[in-house]
Amino acid sequence: MSTQTFGYSKLYDFTVNVFEKIGCPAEQAASAAAVLLLADLRGIDSHGVARLSGYVRLWEAKRVNATPDIRIIHETPSTAVIDGDSGLGLVVAPVAMQVAIDKARNVGTGWVSVQNSNHYGIAAAHAMMALKEDMIGISMTNASPLVAPALSVSKMLGTNPICVAAPAGQQPPFVMDLATTTAANGKLEILQRKNEEAPYGWVQDAEGNPSTDASILKKGGALLPLGGDREHGSHKGYALGAMVDIFSALLSGANYAPWVPPFPAYVPMPEKQPGKGIGHFFGAMRVDAFRPADEFKRDMDDWISGFRNAKTLPGYNKVLIPGDPEREMETERKTGGIPLLTAVADDLKKLGERFAIEL
Amino acid sequence: MSTQTFGYSKLYDFTVNVFEKIGCPAEQAASAAAVLLLADLRGIDSHGVARLSGYVRLWEAKRVNATPDIRIIHETPSTAVIDGDSGLGLVVAPVAMQVAIDKARNVGTGWVSVQNSNHYGIAAAHAMMALKEDMIGISMTNASPLVAPALSVSKMLGTNPICVAAPAGQQPPFVMDLATTTAANGKLEILQRKNEEAPYGWVQDAEGNPSTDASILKKGGALLPLGGDREHGSHKGYALGAMVDIFSALLSGANYAPWVPPFPAYVPMPEKQPGKGIGHFFGAMRVDAFRPADEFKRDMDDWISGFRNAKTLPGYNKVLIPGDPEREMETERKTGGIPLLTAVADDLKKLGERFAIEL
Repeated sequence: MSTQTFGYSKLYDFTVNVFEKIGCPAEQAASAAAVLLLADLRGIDSHGVARLSGYVRLWEAKRVNATPDIRIIHETPSTAVIDGDSGLGLVVAPVAMQVAIDKARNVGTGWVSVQNSNHYGIAAAHAMMALKEDMIGISMTNASPLVAPALSVSKMLGTNPICVAAPAGQQPPFVMDLATTTAANGKLEILQRKNEEAPYGWVQDAEGNPSTDASILKKGGALLPLGGDREHGSHKGYALGAMVDIFSALLSGANYAPWVPPFPAYVPMPEKQPGKGIGHFFGAMRVDAFRPADEFKRDMDDWISGFRNAKTLPGYNKVLIPGDPEREMETERKTGGIPLLTAVADDLKKLGERFAIEL
Repeated sequence: MSTQTFGYSKLYDFTVNVFEKIGCPAEQAASAAAVLLLADLRGIDSHGVARLSGYVRLWEAKRVNATPDIRIIHETPSTAVIDGDSGLGLVVAPVAMQVAIDKARNVGTGWVSVQNSNHYGIAAAHAMMALKEDMIGISMTNASPLVAPALSVSKMLGTNPICVAAPAGQQPPFVMDLATTTAANGKLEILQRKNEEAPYGWVQDAEGNPSTDASILKKGGALLPLGGDREHGSHKGYALGAMVDIFSALLSGANYAPWVPPFPAYVPMPEKQPGKGIGHFFGAMRVDAFRPADEFKRDMDDWISGFRNAKTLPGYNKVLIPGDPEREMETERKTGGIPLLTAVADDLKKLGERFAIEL
């Protein structure tokens, strides 16, 4: 598929401008743009600027508040619940993660559950904030229902990702960021664009039959939890997605299960709203609340080297550490630019024309 | 396969007696027996009394200390590291989980990483301690290497389970307890006994080829991470298992990755020992550190009902909530008794003769 490549700063400035045009205060616009663009840098194209016009449409539909009053509504020394006041998740999440980090500085760990937010970009953007503080960062969010639990045909959960980021010493950090499904929805979208089939185990049709149709979600089908089918542990992926929902929404008072608000503004809100907005959950653990940070990092280096030197399957030349592919992509795209599908670039240009911003 | 059924109290008393005979103080023997037997009650037969003689052999091999001085070696208001002094994990783990609970009572959450321990039974036994306190309980442990990371043929990780237990109101609690592999090793052992094949996606052979041989681990093969193969997300199961290792061992100073001590006493210790013993990680989060417990539990009830009433796949009559099968088994076996394979019962009888305890 044809692409156009843009420099990082150009896309960043453009995105900041768009967020300012919809009324975001300058600092929040900058924070939101940095989170959004990190997805493009790290190769998670489905969660980057490709979604910018979607966020604008949520604002037009009055589902996003451009000037939120983000505040702590309950707290203890190691916990807080934050009301995002319908702000962009891209803005609310870094604020919440910072609260977790501050609490960790004081009492060893900090744990923040968020209600009344919106989609927050890639989970890793927030968890990785902890790394420079020598803390382990944790980030998860619920999302609108696309996933059928094991044994079910009903879409009850989002792709509910989990990110854990842990610092190392000489080695780069460990950064796992995974949807609790066999495959992220973004991968299905790529197959749809290419008109290709999905492998068995990614989706099922409306009756629960195995399917390879990459557009089956539009026909009543569902994504499958990590594991794919019962024999291969789909009850485990389902349980992990459920855990994310409980931590993100049940602990905060956000909407949960099939009642999580949709990302596309044209999709009506669910009739039942048991809570407020979308929910997130963040954690920060100071490494030296457990053990001297240099000892931990020395062992992390040894751990990482051990895995890098493990014997590979035939046809592969190295075992990857979680975060390796995204970090390599980030290095490449920071200098080489970010390739956008022409359709995405055109969409951004239209957005630019509307707000009189040049891309 | 032929079985013999024993009443819970009979097996419990027997197990307490055995632990006392190897020198455990009465209170610790009782605690260890309760943890071990909970596995049998909940239907996780691979982790129950079937392992009792294995624990005794570890003690004989001087790898288990029957009178450990379990102590906190570092702490902050919300964290602790505990040295298990080579005690039985069955004894060390409940002590560590209690520390997490006590810290949660004081500052909202408590997080405890443990070094120098041994196998701790089922993860759920410890996480569930939090439920009666209206807390969410978390429990994980590393284990000796049986699992090859995605793209590898080297056994680098254990089955590294994760348990999360969350209280509900009228509904029973949510209790997920999952090995981060496609299938737990116990399931392979059952297939071996029955001389049956494993489904593709559970194991690979020594060269990394897909295999259905349930005894392939004895021939250099490995268990596969949840996901099974790369196309179905095995890098996610690998990352989750890695996270368990980092929290359990890198944060505490226990052995990690392929250097975790084996359960069978006849298997030599790994030459390299980067830390002490096996590592665990426990968490407790007071629900009301986030939100009034009655509101949380009301929403949990609603969440659980929603999933129970979700439409099932053809051929199934209900969608399960994590913890349902184990709880139903527990109810059944508490009154109806615990069926043991004759081989297991014979093994216990032999143990009984040795220590002059009647089963």
